[in-house]
Parts: sequence; structure tokens; C-alpha cells
Amino acid sequence: MNEPTPEQTAALNERHRARMERKKAIVDAKIAAADKEIGIIVVNTGNGKGKSSSGFGMVARALGHGMKVGVVQFIKGAMSTGEEKFLRRFPDEVSFHAMGEGYTWDTQDRVRDTEKAQAAWTQAKTFLADPAYGLVLLDELNIALKYRYLDVDVVIADLLERPAMQHVVITGRGAPPELVDIADTVTEMNVVKHAFKAGIAAQAGTEF
Amino acid sequence: MNEPTPEQTAALNERHRARMERKKAIVDAKIAAADKEIGIIVVNTGNGKGKSSSGFGMVARALGHGMKVGVVQFIKGAMSTGEEKFLRRFPDEVSFHAMGEGYTWDTQDRVRDTEKAQAAWTQAKTFLADPAYGLVLLDELNIALKYRYLDVDVVIADLLERPAMQHVVITGRGAPPELVDIADTVTEMNVVKHAFKAGIAAQAGTEF
Repeated sequence: MNEPTPEQTAALNERHRARMERKKAIVDAKIAAADKEIGIIVVNTGNGKGKSSSGFGMVARALGHGMKVGVVQFIKGAMSTGEEKFLRRFPDEVSFHAMGEGYTWDTQDRVRDTEKAQAAWTQAKTFLADPAYGLVLLDELNIALKYRYLDVDVVIADLLERPAMQHVVITGRGAPPELVDIADTVTEMNVVKHAFKAGIAAQAGTEF
Repeated sequence: MNEPTPEQTAALNERHRARMERKKAIVDAKIAAADKEIGIIVVNTGNGKGKSSSGFGMVARALGHGMKVGVVQFIKGAMSTGEEKFLRRFPDEVSFHAMGEGYTWDTQDRVRDTEKAQAAWTQAKTFLADPAYGLVLLDELNIALKYRYLDVDVVIADLLERPAMQHVVITGRGAPPELVDIADTVTEMNVVKHAFKAGIAAQAGTEF
């Protein structure tokens, strides 16, 4: 391929400038129209990676803004994850509660799983009742709802009664439609490719 | 709806146990087959939320495992985000480099954007050449590739030459197909619902 002439480069740069100028006008108008400041419910669902790690990234973001954060891990918990090790370094800023059991297919005991999930929800409610918490992460809550360890109507009622400015992030595959209905931002993480399927082990730092 | 009888509950619990037992056998077999320990390339793309925050969650995870982390923010940078404020608290563990310009539609200057992106890539290469970094986050790199501020072949060559155990996370919408080809784990974040469209402003703690 020949190098572009100076005239071609100048034309390319000018087209870029004009396109970006139009884009900026559209973005600025959208920002001006979006002026409500209110606590939102974010749901990360789907079968792909990134649901929990995105929630933990939002925790880091909130801590950077000086917010106090509450975290409840449903279902997982048995594995001492890197996030947990890291967040436990900031006990004044992050209240961390892990349910303390492994994945449900490790326990195979529905009665015990239900009791554990109910206890975790009791902990979640103390965060949802306290305006001192600017962000509450309910990690893998969707799994507890999917297996009916928790009643979705009870969960939604407690979520809607929280302080007006409190943000909540809920993760886990299979978010129930009732929860999607009341959420403000919902993202579906879809697998395009997964290292695990290529025979690569779950490793510290990327998977847990 | 009538309450289930004790016999019905017992049957439900037993079905659950049997289903979870089968699931555990499948998961255990997959874990046994996936035994390669090697640095992977993770790509978070798509139009939905969670691409960058998932990358920052992986940073928190890696820090929990005592890894050293390098972060380069392409394109964003102008906004002093919560993540940046938070991660700058750990200068011995996180090397943070923000490109120092806003979104491209704010600058409308292709020559300057290209220079800034090239300088950011020079910084990224120092992380990719140093085995002391267990994880490197290249935030919004896909945008710099999309606008051809960087050459995708050069970027891929540098990625493939990195230390064998180093993990890399690359974020941004519109990941080029060449990058997807060489990545190990690729997730597409898709919008189901976005608070911004309902007139809710981008707020500290959730959006930045």
C-alpha cells in the first residue's frame, strides 16, 4: 500500500474532526438531558465472565469517591477470593460478609443452602437499611433467587425500601425477570470465548 | 397456593441433591481437564456497562493475591475516576498511567490523539516487558485500535512477546477481530437496560 499524500492525510484528519464534532454535540445533549441524581440498581447477568469482577470494580470506584461499601457474597464464599483478601484490608470502608459455603453443587443440601442464603439476606438488609452505605454489592444473589433459596418478592420489597441515594449492584447468571423490571441498568455478559474450555485452569488473579 | 406437604418438601430436596450431585461430577471433570497454568489475555467488549469496571475488579483480585499490577488508561484519562483515586493509594503495588486526554469527541484532533495513544502504548510496552507485573490492564485500548491511533499488528506482536505467566485485560467496545483471535477469554457486555437513557445522570460510584 502506498503512503497517503499530505493532502489525503489532511482530508482524513478533517473528516475525523467533523465526525467527532457531531458526536460531541450528541453526547453533550444526552448529558444535559440526564440530570437525575438518585441511587440506582445495577444488574450484571448472563453466562459470560465479568459479572462479579465488574461489581468489585464498582466497589473500588466507590471507595475512590470516599463512599462506605457493604458487600454480601451469596453462594460463593467458600473460596477465599483475591477480592475478599484485598477488601478486608479496609475494614473501616468496606463491610464484607461471605456466606461461608461453596457452590451449591458442592453442598447438595438444599435445606442448609436455604438457611445460609436467608442469613446472608438478613446481613444484606442491614446494609440496605443504612444510608451510611453508598454502595451495596450483592454478589451472586441471582443464583440464590434462581434456586429459590430466597423469595424474589421479599428481596425486591427490601431493595425498593432502601435509602434514596444508595446504589446497589446485583450479580449472577439467570437474573429473574421481576428483578430486571425494577433495575435501572442491566447488562448481559455473554461468552465469546473462554480460556477454561481450552484446557486452561482457573488461576489466581484472573478467575478468583 | 397450599403449603407443600413434608413428603413433597423431602422429595424436592432429594431431587435437588441428585441434580447437584450430577452437576458437581461435571464441574469436577472439567476442572481436572483444565490444568494449564499460563498467562491469559482477557478481552471485555460490547456496548454494555461493565467492561472497565470488570477490569478494575480483576486488578483488586490480583492485588489480593499479592501480584504487582500495571494499568494504562487509553482515551479516558481526562476524568479523574474513582478507580484512579483509589488505586493511586497503592503506589508500590499498582503502576497507574492515564493517557491524560478526554474522549476523542472532546478533542476532535486526530493528530494529537494519535500521539497520545502512541505514548500510552510505549508505557504499556514497559509493563508487557517486565515479568514483575502479574497483571496488566489496558483500559479502552479497543477504542484506540478502532480509530487506528495504534496499529493492531504491532499491538498483537507486543502482547504475544510478553512474559509467559503475565495476564492481560483489554477493554473497550469494538474489539478488532484480530485481537479476538489471539485472546483466551472474550466477553461481550450487552445493554439490556441503561439508567442514562431513563434520564439519570452519570454519577460518582456507579459510572465513574
